[in-house]
Amino acid sequence: MAKNFTTELNSIFYPESIAVIGASNRFAKWGSFIMSHLLAGGYQGRIYPINPKEKEIYGRKVYTKLAAVPENVDLVVITTPVDSILDITRQCIDKRVGGIVTVTSGFSETGADGKQIEKDLADLVNAAKIPMIGPNTMGVMCTQKKMFALGAPLAPRRGDISFISQSGNLGVQMLEWAEQQGIGMSKFVGSGNESVIRKDHILEYYADDPDTKVILIYLEGVAEGTRFMKIAEETAAKKPIIALKGGRTEAGGEAARSHTGSMAGNTVILGSAFRQSGVIEAKTPSDMLNFSVAMANLPLPKGLRIGVITFGGGWGVITCDAIVEQGMQVAVLSQDIIEKLDKVLPPFWSRRNPVDLVGQINQEAFVESVKLVTSSPDVDAVICLGIVGVTSMGIRSFSASAEAADLDNVEYAVRKARDKLFTIERGYLNEVNEIMNQTHKPVINVSLYAGGSHERYQSKTGYSEVVYPTPETAVNSLAAMYHHYQYLKGKGTME
Amino acid sequence: MAKNFTTELNSIFYPESIAVIGASNRFAKWGSFIMSHLLAGGYQGRIYPINPKEKEIYGRKVYTKLAAVPENVDLVVITTPVDSILDITRQCIDKRVGGIVTVTSGFSETGADGKQIEKDLADLVNAAKIPMIGPNTMGVMCTQKKMFALGAPLAPRRGDISFISQSGNLGVQMLEWAEQQGIGMSKFVGSGNESVIRKDHILEYYADDPDTKVILIYLEGVAEGTRFMKIAEETAAKKPIIALKGGRTEAGGEAARSHTGSMAGNTVILGSAFRQSGVIEAKTPSDMLNFSVAMANLPLPKGLRIGVITFGGGWGVITCDAIVEQGMQVAVLSQDIIEKLDKVLPPFWSRRNPVDLVGQINQEAFVESVKLVTSSPDVDAVICLGIVGVTSMGIRSFSASAEAADLDNVEYAVRKARDKLFTIERGYLNEVNEIMNQTHKPVINVSLYAGGSHERYQSKTGYSEVVYPTPETAVNSLAAMYHHYQYLKGKGTME
Repeated sequence: MAKNFTTELNSIFYPESIAVIGASNRFAKWGSFIMSHLLAGGYQGRIYPINPKEKEIYGRKVYTKLAAVPENVDLVVITTPVDSILDITRQCIDKRVGGIVTVTSGFSETGADGKQIEKDLADLVNAAKIPMIGPNTMGVMCTQKKMFALGAPLAPRRGDISFISQSGNLGVQMLEWAEQQGIGMSKFVGSGNESVIRKDHILEYYADDPDTKVILIYLEGVAEGTRFMKIAEETAAKKPIIALKGGRTEAGGEAARSHTGSMAGNTVILGSAFRQSGVIEAKTPSDMLNFSVAMANLPLPKGLRIGVITFGGGWGVITCDAIVEQGMQVAVLSQDIIEKLDKVLPPFWSRRNPVDLVGQINQEAFVESVKLVTSSPDVDAVICLGIVGVTSMGIRSFSASAEAADLDNVEYAVRKARDKLFTIERGYLNEVNEIMNQTHKPVINVSLYAGGSHERYQSKTGYSEVVYPTPETAVNSLAAMYHHYQYLKGKGTME
Repeated sequence: MAKNFTTELNSIFYPESIAVIGASNRFAKWGSFIMSHLLAGGYQGRIYPINPKEKEIYGRKVYTKLAAVPENVDLVVITTPVDSILDITRQCIDKRVGGIVTVTSGFSETGADGKQIEKDLADLVNAAKIPMIGPNTMGVMCTQKKMFALGAPLAPRRGDISFISQSGNLGVQMLEWAEQQGIGMSKFVGSGNESVIRKDHILEYYADDPDTKVILIYLEGVAEGTRFMKIAEETAAKKPIIALKGGRTEAGGEAARSHTGSMAGNTVILGSAFRQSGVIEAKTPSDMLNFSVAMANLPLPKGLRIGVITFGGGWGVITCDAIVEQGMQVAVLSQDIIEKLDKVLPPFWSRRNPVDLVGQINQEAFVESVKLVTSSPDVDAVICLGIVGVTSMGIRSFSASAEAADLDNVEYAVRKARDKLFTIERGYLNEVNEIMNQTHKPVINVSLYAGGSHERYQSKTGYSEVVYPTPETAVNSLAAMYHHYQYLKGKGTME
């Protein structure tokens, strides 16, 4: 089945109307989760709860059945039990709905009976040529449409990273991390049992989606592997694909077969297919998310020589260790750059890479150092340690001293200091973006302060700052980006 | 110089009175930082700001000089410039103070002149037999004394992990992480240039300190290496020591020599010395902190067979991969345990390890599953995925549906739900602690929800729950713990 569902999937990601079959007022029912998360996410289209027994659900008028809805329905989300599914699906077909997301579980993952119902379901839906996600899925999301038809209460900010997850719980946890870290996401699909729409169809859709810049895939097995890899290879030439394979080991593979009740690809083959197709392989969910942020916002490094600018010595040291251990190099600065840095830094600065600012907290010195190091022909990428976060640390110190001084209006003074310091940090980050736009080299910041602001990772025109919590995250991301650059260069799609 | 400073260091960690020389009302001066952070941290002893020009600093009476303080002073923190240091130190000696922390920088790390002053300083202090930390340090901390004489505004909660950091900025960032993650700390020393008190002296102190259960060291070089390793070996038999070596690579080592202007040990030798001495080596600051939380709170695993209990399939799969890739094994459950689990789990549970709860959210099922798997003779340690965090997710969902339903008193309803759900989570964690106390096997939780509560990692009598954000953290920590168990077993200090 080589069908391409690219057009049909628009009904699922960009619906103007959604019916929730099994919608419920009773907390902890799936029909309550989907309804309340759709409403909390701010979906602006029309929502039709379907339930034969209720009059109103969460303030919305209820319809007894799908046929009673007075207009065409783009997307139907089904949460009713497995034994109702064939009947409900026939109603969807009669109504000529645009797409279906079957959240309900209890199909092939539970045994032979479930497998048969799932096959009947797929036959029905395929004959009617309606795209269906699931069954056994956590749902779908499209931030551009403020559409969060999810079983979990999550709404990451709008951005351009789109995600396919074969595992609902892993997918949900990653959406939660994205939300916590302020990472902008575009779309999410829990692909579930994939009885009609599979990962390859969604990948194809993301490949053409103008709102998607980077694609994440968590997969345990692949049906129609040849087609999947062909689409992956075509897509990887246009947009980075970052994949995490669950079941790489024999024990992991057995666990995967046990819980999906389905296919589980041969990992070794998949691993080398990934490399040949330009798919970037991540080893952990955290890496997958971290790489995607870098890929979505930064230029690719065209070499391995890394400049390091640090607010203090120790972080510089461990970052150098990480750079070398990842097979990259600590860049050697020319005498020319060192002399220029001499003019902006305190007399006892390190006079070498890593460039140690020795606690210098002057914004001009930050910016000038980053500009000089990044524009050096001996440097391919730059990591800045601890410049971001100094403001948050400063605000907290100021707050402590304002309180100790028993200032008349501590809150006002702290707010003023916060505004001023955040303006400085924002100004620094704007300059970093400008430097990247001019040099086309990546500059990654590592924050000194986990408790700081989360308003980051904004995708704008051009490149956009990335702020990581640890140096090793920055180093590992640069290594992944450089490998991707090499792949594209080998393919001739990048000079 | 084989002197043991164990008794003398009490004046530095547990002072009844502290003088701050160079104390200041002017924000961003070191003398302002130390004063305001001491006050914000809630230090209960007497604080004497010393400044010839001020009358009052942050509400405290100022003394023109140390000699004017009307009582003995246990600890002096010096922040005045390098050219004042010898004179100020003589005043400390005349006053017969208990200990000195010299925050001031500009010594050997800046060149030959600074090196000479540092030598003169050390000679003075050594002749007077006064213990001195620094110069060029971020300060010291003792949570048991609510004493935060730090250049950075940090006050992690009280606990039993003590930390020696040769790098101020790395040390401070780790304290910030500890604070953010609710990790209980005992003591911190930025060892700075170590011209009198070195890492080996502090290690010796921590070895005997009843408030210290686990020791963290960040080091770039070691003076008196033989003495250091001898003390480390003696200490490691009593308390876990987790070390991170900065400058493991040639480039990292050069960076270290550049910023400390001092010794930098031969890494390869240090690495093997660590292993022989039972020091646990971490490769990143995050690992160092994560390992310490496990070591402080959990029993050591006595084997490599790991049980996995998961709230959903995908996390179980990637955890199995990580277990195998770390050289451990996914435990095989006996038929007996499987039959007992059959009685508490939904009919289509996985019937093997990983034990998949398939979204079951019943507290009794959680507890009973953990109890059955942990007590199995085929299991050495257990990782529980996603049970912790379900409550936070549930509260957020409930809040969304309460708002959508336009409940009369949404806040009250949400607060009631939160109280109820946190009671369930707390009850589950109490049971986990009880299971560990009975079985002496570690049970690690991985949270589904980063945005949840931080009130964790409480050291009490017996073992105490550990909650990590990712499965790989749990797996890596178990691997480190097992290696430590093997070391102790080989030494005959553990059966």
